[in-house]
Amino acid sequence: MSAGINVAILGATGAVGTEIIQLLEERNFPIAKLKLLASPRSSGQEISFRGETLTVEEVTADSFKDVDLVLASAGGSTSKTWAQTIVDAGAVMVDNSSAFRMEDNVPLIVPEVNPEAASQHQGIIANPNCTTILMGLAVFPLHQVQSLQRLIVATYQSASGAGAKAMAELKTQAQAILNDETPTATAFPYPLAFNVFPHNSPLNEQGYCQEEMKMVKETRKIFGDSQLRISATCVRVPVLRAHSEAINLEFAEPFAVGKAKAILAEAPGVELREDWENNYFPMPNEATGKDAVFVGRIRQDISHPCGLELWLSGDQIRKGAALNAVQIAELLVKENLLKTTASAVSV
Amino acid sequence: MSAGINVAILGATGAVGTEIIQLLEERNFPIAKLKLLASPRSSGQEISFRGETLTVEEVTADSFKDVDLVLASAGGSTSKTWAQTIVDAGAVMVDNSSAFRMEDNVPLIVPEVNPEAASQHQGIIANPNCTTILMGLAVFPLHQVQSLQRLIVATYQSASGAGAKAMAELKTQAQAILNDETPTATAFPYPLAFNVFPHNSPLNEQGYCQEEMKMVKETRKIFGDSQLRISATCVRVPVLRAHSEAINLEFAEPFAVGKAKAILAEAPGVELREDWENNYFPMPNEATGKDAVFVGRIRQDISHPCGLELWLSGDQIRKGAALNAVQIAELLVKENLLKTTASAVSV
Repeated sequence: MSAGINVAILGATGAVGTEIIQLLEERNFPIAKLKLLASPRSSGQEISFRGETLTVEEVTADSFKDVDLVLASAGGSTSKTWAQTIVDAGAVMVDNSSAFRMEDNVPLIVPEVNPEAASQHQGIIANPNCTTILMGLAVFPLHQVQSLQRLIVATYQSASGAGAKAMAELKTQAQAILNDETPTATAFPYPLAFNVFPHNSPLNEQGYCQEEMKMVKETRKIFGDSQLRISATCVRVPVLRAHSEAINLEFAEPFAVGKAKAILAEAPGVELREDWENNYFPMPNEATGKDAVFVGRIRQDISHPCGLELWLSGDQIRKGAALNAVQIAELLVKENLLKTTASAVSV
Repeated sequence: MSAGINVAILGATGAVGTEIIQLLEERNFPIAKLKLLASPRSSGQEISFRGETLTVEEVTADSFKDVDLVLASAGGSTSKTWAQTIVDAGAVMVDNSSAFRMEDNVPLIVPEVNPEAASQHQGIIANPNCTTILMGLAVFPLHQVQSLQRLIVATYQSASGAGAKAMAELKTQAQAILNDETPTATAFPYPLAFNVFPHNSPLNEQGYCQEEMKMVKETRKIFGDSQLRISATCVRVPVLRAHSEAINLEFAEPFAVGKAKAILAEAPGVELREDWENNYFPMPNEATGKDAVFVGRIRQDISHPCGLELWLSGDQIRKGAALNAVQIAELLVKENLLKTTASAVSV
């Protein structure tokens, strides 16, 4: 592998796939050969990488021969379709979909939080949900110092969470409303422009949507604490590509605000953004395109002696998806974990 | 008073004042004479009421002679300037500003919640903050049945909270961004279009902003429970005129979801909006212009055995301000409370 790694991007033309390709170039990932894969509809498209023009190929059973690493971001059903083929070909799959995240034999990784889990992989490593990654970065450093008991989060999620089509639709809707026309919605069930609505993923019997249960279950798995009490309310807001979150934390004992700020000021992947004089805190329009998760408004919760409140914004496509996947890939290279030892995949 | 009431609107040309005038007409408030008052800048404007054209007058020391009721929505400093004059003139002031809300001798009223407090007035009755009114309507009916212990709320507040100028600015900013131009912000400290940011009211030493402390303190006063534990995170979102709130409630004992829904289905001023099959819940674009507060997504909080989660949207200008003020006025008429018995105002 000293000559570099053969990498395939599955879902190369999507919002996340496009960002992954840029990040591989920006971060000088040690690539020998890059293969861009997509559905027949997108094959033939040309994408520039390190000054070369690469053509997107249709994914087939032969696509993964001689590939060491697959970065997949084409949705859960595509990941399920190709996972066994990828592992059988001897490649490691870093999967951005939710298909395998909760499987026992699939590590679910935020590299700043639980990098040690990577060594347990059996061919597939899952990239967590965007809201989970952003929250984990801000909360885990505190949880390490003092055990977190309960977490209540309300999200402010951008259109990008539903893909490039949804981002375009938000703009089209906004223009319609500004023109006094009635907006139409196809990517979303309801107009998002000048509106907000609870996240439209399927609801379970308890009334929690899938997105909320991802935050609950994935955070528990990443933190290695299956009993952690979490409740989430996920809401879409008319923002293009960065998510924000209002997080209420309850610890076993009081957590000094100054101590929390000092911890987060040093936390990897986190940038503290608090200018109390000017009421200036993290905002999604400033987090857009940035690697860091911006955290601020860290306050003692006045309703609970052991509570803290905090606020964050982070780029949904970048750290919420593509960057985290590339960081997992970098971790695999660094720890020499790109050789698979097993090929048992539950699909 | 059988011939009707002499009413003055202080701040007649603002977003809330305009809505109050419409509501007085719509609801057939028993008016003998309507006087429209504003700053010198707005005087001379003409406003239609019951088919007549009324001219806005500059407010002066003589404005309140022969006036029975003043509905004030011209901001805290204007309310403070004229309160004593109004009370001395024998009129009752229903004040929409925050100037007197926390004064011991000023009832703070949501008519569906604590109408009985009106009888204690000494010339001034305060209209609560918009987010407080909307939350109170949804939460008080549950609190009456089973004592609420703690409340954590995250808000999604529209531009209208900062007035008509802010609503116009949001549209201008959105158009600029759609044109790939850089938006400018004057009504707000930061661009609100395609963005969100923590509420920009002044922060206290604990890091809570004024808007958040209004939710905390006013809710306690309205509910008559000075010990109620409340924490709030107030956030502005790019919506024009209706607020939404994600509310986490903790009771002393488990509160059955079905029971909570049945209570809210009957609660005055509340409309239950839950279509779980279609993931259809309250949205600010549908709450706009409506009287009711729309409540939905009532769920058992999976992080606490005695917890409930709920979601609401309500028109900020209407029930969040103008309608509540007019309802207070209707209550004063019904209970024959328009005669003031005292004139002690702390200004």
